[in-house]
Amino acid sequence: MSRGVFITLEGGDGTGKTTQSELLESWLVAQGRAVVRTREPGGTDVGVEVREIVLHHRGDIAPRAEALLYAADRAHHVATLVRPALERGDVVIQDRYIDSSVAYQGAGRVLDPEAVRGLSEWATEGLLPDLTVLLDLDAASARERLDGARTRYDRLEAEASEFHDRVRSAYLALAAAEPERFLVVDAAQPVEAIAEAVRARVSTLL
Amino acid sequence: MSRGVFITLEGGDGTGKTTQSELLESWLVAQGRAVVRTREPGGTDVGVEVREIVLHHRGDIAPRAEALLYAADRAHHVATLVRPALERGDVVIQDRYIDSSVAYQGAGRVLDPEAVRGLSEWATEGLLPDLTVLLDLDAASARERLDGARTRYDRLEAEASEFHDRVRSAYLALAAAEPERFLVVDAAQPVEAIAEAVRARVSTLL
Repeated sequence: MSRGVFITLEGGDGTGKTTQSELLESWLVAQGRAVVRTREPGGTDVGVEVREIVLHHRGDIAPRAEALLYAADRAHHVATLVRPALERGDVVIQDRYIDSSVAYQGAGRVLDPEAVRGLSEWATEGLLPDLTVLLDLDAASARERLDGARTRYDRLEAEASEFHDRVRSAYLALAAAEPERFLVVDAAQPVEAIAEAVRARVSTLL
Repeated sequence: MSRGVFITLEGGDGTGKTTQSELLESWLVAQGRAVVRTREPGGTDVGVEVREIVLHHRGDIAPRAEALLYAADRAHHVATLVRPALERGDVVIQDRYIDSSVAYQGAGRVLDPEAVRGLSEWATEGLLPDLTVLLDLDAASARERLDGARTRYDRLEAEASEFHDRVRSAYLALAAAEPERFLVVDAAQPVEAIAEAVRARVSTLL
């Protein structure tokens, strides 16, 4: 097969996306698969510069500007890293993608979610994941985990709990609308139980 | 009147937009008008950071990412600076706006110009100028002027002459499509003759 497999991980901060990405990568590499593990924002050189603005700019950013910055990061990332990897036949494991924008800038910032999705579809020329793993956790538990891990919060982590509640609801609605693409996992489970559920689903794609 | 006047200047680099903006500002201020003179990209704090990426990033930027970065700069600029000034009743004199994106990212980069315009219309919630002054100059003359003024070129200035020819043609087509919004001026004329033509047209708006 000439086309790889595109897997995205979604969910709030503190839900374990990085841990699960690493475990999945190790498992795939042990099977001899070529894997690219990456993230948005910030998966490219241009993206690192955009990430610095969206997450660490001091002062407000207009909501539409924020949505456009994420889409710009995504356009460069897909064109220069994700698509070439998929064309080589690699597995791409990616922390956050279009669903993050719809959940955070759409529901979180109260922009029109379909307009936000439209920006990303134009940015990526319509590239969609083969599988999206949603690590679902209530906002209070996620915050508790972050409190143990972070010494400072970025602009989005620092938003109020109602913001994070809206984001979680938006994620669950996205998963319900596309059950064939999404695997929803209860992120309160032990790490190894989650990893096993992810591996079981990924196996069906290889 | 509670709404101000929104005037944009367009044209290639080296056509005299900055000079004409300054002359127009002085003339309006002498008449007691409150004037905000600004530019895109880079008219705000967020914009300065975006401008640094789009004009000075080392290495290629995917064309769609470039278009989205300009739109992000524009969204923040309009929301935080241009609209508030117009609501106060000020005259806003702005170096580059949506027409630049359509001409440079649309025609120059060979993206769909209507898609590029759509990004900006979403970014600005549909804010259009009352007057757009197009300073028209052939690419060779503009380059000659720049050679005298610049010690280094930014990413767009450094593009080949065919790129700048496409941009100029796109600008002229935009002006032809909206003659009531555009004033097209031959930028090879003396500075004062151009300034007089601009003042004559602006007078009709005040």
